[in-house]
Parts: sequence; structure tokens; C-alpha cells
Amino acid sequence: MVPHLITALTGPINELEQRILDTTPAIERWFRLEWMEHQPPFYCSVDIRNAGFKLAPVDTNLFPGGWNNLTPEMLPLAVQAAMAAIEKICPEARNLLVVPENHTGNTYYLSNVLQLKRIFHQAGLNVRFGSLSSEIKEPTTLNLPTGESLTIEPLIRTDRRLGLKDFNPCAILLNNDLSAGIPGILEDLNEQYLLPPLHASWSVRRKSTHFKAYEEVSKRFGKLLGVDPWLINPMFAQCGDVNFAEGAGMECLTTNVDALLSKIKRKYKEYGINEKPFVVVKADNGTYGMGIMTVRDVKDLGA
Amino acid sequence: MVPHLITALTGPINELEQRILDTTPAIERWFRLEWMEHQPPFYCSVDIRNAGFKLAPVDTNLFPGGWNNLTPEMLPLAVQAAMAAIEKICPEARNLLVVPENHTGNTYYLSNVLQLKRIFHQAGLNVRFGSLSSEIKEPTTLNLPTGESLTIEPLIRTDRRLGLKDFNPCAILLNNDLSAGIPGILEDLNEQYLLPPLHASWSVRRKSTHFKAYEEVSKRFGKLLGVDPWLINPMFAQCGDVNFAEGAGMECLTTNVDALLSKIKRKYKEYGINEKPFVVVKADNGTYGMGIMTVRDVKDLGA
Repeated sequence: MVPHLITALTGPINELEQRILDTTPAIERWFRLEWMEHQPPFYCSVDIRNAGFKLAPVDTNLFPGGWNNLTPEMLPLAVQAAMAAIEKICPEARNLLVVPENHTGNTYYLSNVLQLKRIFHQAGLNVRFGSLSSEIKEPTTLNLPTGESLTIEPLIRTDRRLGLKDFNPCAILLNNDLSAGIPGILEDLNEQYLLPPLHASWSVRRKSTHFKAYEEVSKRFGKLLGVDPWLINPMFAQCGDVNFAEGAGMECLTTNVDALLSKIKRKYKEYGINEKPFVVVKADNGTYGMGIMTVRDVKDLGA
Repeated sequence: MVPHLITALTGPINELEQRILDTTPAIERWFRLEWMEHQPPFYCSVDIRNAGFKLAPVDTNLFPGGWNNLTPEMLPLAVQAAMAAIEKICPEARNLLVVPENHTGNTYYLSNVLQLKRIFHQAGLNVRFGSLSSEIKEPTTLNLPTGESLTIEPLIRTDRRLGLKDFNPCAILLNNDLSAGIPGILEDLNEQYLLPPLHASWSVRRKSTHFKAYEEVSKRFGKLLGVDPWLINPMFAQCGDVNFAEGAGMECLTTNVDALLSKIKRKYKEYGINEKPFVVVKADNGTYGMGIMTVRDVKDLGA
């Protein structure tokens, strides 16, 4: 299902779109061969920024929420994709334990995990929810404004397995990005499939590593398509420790932002784009887009 | 995507439907495990007869037409399924040769093969059509009332491969059930994937073998669901050569039809179904539902 982009399209994007449509069979074959070499994430969501002249991923979430936003037409596709993933990873599985985020007061988030349950139930698994929160001491039923409800249960850890009372899952699906660190209860579960693996969590994962890998991929993909990879790749640079309050690391930040703004300016000139370049400053790990900063001039950094 | 059945439902079907819905995860797991043991057909269509009190497959086509009847919502599901099948069978494939039926005057059939092309193009293959007909001596473009068109080309056979001019496919998809026999041009293609294999054609395949296999499967499936397999299985019996014009084989036919009608009558009584039983007489091979005969009394056989 092709997403419909409603941003007004200008020159380079129209060309890129046409090139992608013309190259469909080669692109799909490229993906088929890539999936033979690399295991794709079990699930993920990608934020794509469409500037009208450039289209690039700016955020990849390996513990995606928002499943409740799928349209009814998309649901069967999600079920079919879930079936294919289960068939590959754990075909004998009967039970799936979903570990959600702890903020159970957010009804949108609860709708999200209910939708996940619906998808994996239709794909052929018994689904129950287990919480990392110390506040969940017994099965707790939460009611949604829609009239639906879901039950969250306390996790039970044995020596080698994680489960719930009378529920021994083959696979555990994390919908919790472990921003607060990897809890001991999830470690050394060598008998069960833990999806995604712990090193996908923000305790280990770094955006700079991700964008470096993506840059390599976009170069190869650009070569396949015969297009400038810049059209699909956000330029980036990385600093070590930065602390705005203490002024630590500001020199690296200023230098990198300045260099990026210059590089983007050159690209805009090359394509005749009459826009003011900007750089987005983010922490190298972490989620929710909190504490990010848009900079159009190094002076904005207050350095 | 669950088909919506518009026949009025009565007792046993309502129960069967509820049992199926309640057992969804176990059913899907059962299929996952079956697909590990048995390779499913590359594609097929199944005619299901819904009597209101019983729901059973009566015809399975391994060279399905009617792809043009898919709703727009179903198309992405077909593409996703095609992708999964290609990924399993021939991930390196670039080119797919489709061999359609010869009756190129039927515009519904042409819409069907165009839809197949669309599905496999979106799934990532270059698709072209090659004809078994001796009348196609050069690339022939056919126009549809919709304004679309398609080109059918003569097949080119080399010692070990089948293709078209400047088109060397990794895989060949038959949309021709070879009712007229297996042409030599399709034999001994050991370097290419021929889908479905030649023994799926009506030259080899027999309905009685299919229904015998299905009967076994429906018994196991009925056990899993805890339902009478009769609710999903059409009773059948097989005769050898029968020729109505010459009166040959009529004794076997009369005996089998009589026995089937009695067995069905007993089942109707068991379920309190107030209907007159009938038997459908068909050739053991062949397609299109031609020459089939509905019999409610052995006297109708004129024996």
C-alpha cells in the first residue's frame, strides 16, 4: 500500500517518484536480496520528512506505537505481515507475551497495544500483557473510552523463562523501548524469543550509528536508482558529551552545525532550492522527540 | 480478510462459525505447522458451497483465473502474498514469464492476466506473456474495452530453457491448465521454476485423489475444532470409465449415487435438515464445470 503524500511536490521529488515507480521490480528484487543477507527488525515505524524537494527518514522507532492509527484497510496487511514474521521466527509458537510501556493512563497508548493484540491474535497467537511496572501487583483491567478493556498482569520470572500466571509464552514482544535501562528480569532469557532483542533498546542503540548505516544503504540504493542519495538521506554529524546548562561540548556542536549548514547550502544551490537550511539537534539516544532543537544559524546555539 | 457470506445461516453453520472464531489462534498455528510439512500450491482458487447448514469446498483450481475480480482493497494483500511466495521460491528472480490460456478473445480473461501482471510487477518482477498457441507467431498486442492493452509473444524454447525474444525468465507461471495435454515445449525445463508443476495440470491431476486427500485433512481439522468433519467435507465416491452415450460404467455410477444419497439422507436426519439430498456427477479431471449433472434420485440417471 503506497502512502499518499499531501505535501506539494516540486521538481526533484517528482523526478524521484517517477524513478522509483519505473524501477519498482529492481527495487523489490534489491530488498529481497537484502533480506537474505540481513534480518529486518521484527517491527518498526519510520518518520519520513517530505520537504517537497527531498524525502528522508528522520526517526526510526524499533518499539513502534500508534498501531491504533492503522486504517481498517491496513489491518489485514498487518496481520499478513505478522503471519509471515511468525512463520519465519517461531512457527511453533502458541503464546505471545507483550510487554507494554508503563504509562497505562494514556488511552491512545492502550488502544495501540489492544490493536497489537488484535493483529497477533488474528495471525494465530494467544496474546496477554505483562508489565515491567512494580505498581502492577495483580491482574489489572483497564477500561477504554471505546468500551474496550485490557488486562495487564504482573510478570513472573523463573530461572530461565519469563511469563505470567498460567501463561508460558514462546515469544516476548517488547513495546517498551527501555529508555530507563534494561531491567534484570529481561536478561538471560535464552529459551525464549525476545523481540526486538535488548540491543535494539535505547540503552544500547545510538542514532549516530543508525544514520551512519543508513547513509551507506542510501548510497547503494541511490546507485541502483541512478539518483543523488542526498534526496533520501539526511546529512548528519555526531558530537560526544554536550551539556547546554554547563556549556560542555559546545565547541564540537558549533563546528558541526556550521559545517552541516554550509554543506546543505551548497546542495540547495546545486538544486536551485530557495530555502533557508536548518539543522536539528538531538540526543544520540532516547525517544519521544523531547528536547530537540532546530537551528538555522550557529548564533542560535548561544555559544 | 474474512469473506462475507450472504447466504442465510442456520443452526450448524452458526455454531461452526463461532467455533472457528473462538479457535483462531489454534487454527492459524495448525496452518503454520502444516506449511512446514507440505508446500502449499503457488496459487489456487477454491469454490466453496454454502448450504446454510454446511460449508464445503467443491472445486479447487490450481490455475486460477478471475484475478480481475479482486476488489482494490484485496490487491495489496495479493501483492504481499506474491512477495512472500517469491521470497521463498526464487528470491533472485528478475523476470517472470506468464503462460496464459489460448482463448485471447475473452476480454474478462485478458483482464485477469493483466491483473496477474500488475500483482507480480508490484511484487518486484518484470512480467511478459508467452503463448502456447501456434497462432501467435509474432508479438501480438490485444486491446481491452477498458483502454488497457497487453502483448502476447511467441515462446522460444532452447535446449534447456523457455523464454521470449530478449527475455530469459527465472520462473514460468502457468495460467493454463493444460486440459489439452502437456505440450513438449514445457517438458524437461530443469533450470527454471515452473509454477505450478506439470503434475498439477488436468493431464495428471484427478479430482478423486484431491477429495480423498481433503477428506483426510478435514478429519484432522474437525478433530482440532471439535466439529463433525461432514460440515466442511463433501462426501464423494469414484467410478472408473463411464460413458452415458454407450451406457458403459452405469452400474457403478448408479450404485455409488444411491449409496451417497442414503448417506447424506442419514446426515440430514441427524441434523434435522429438511432438504432433499443431491449428488453432483463430474468427470474425474477437467475444468470449467462443463458436463456436470445434479442428481436427486438414481432414476434421473436413466439407468
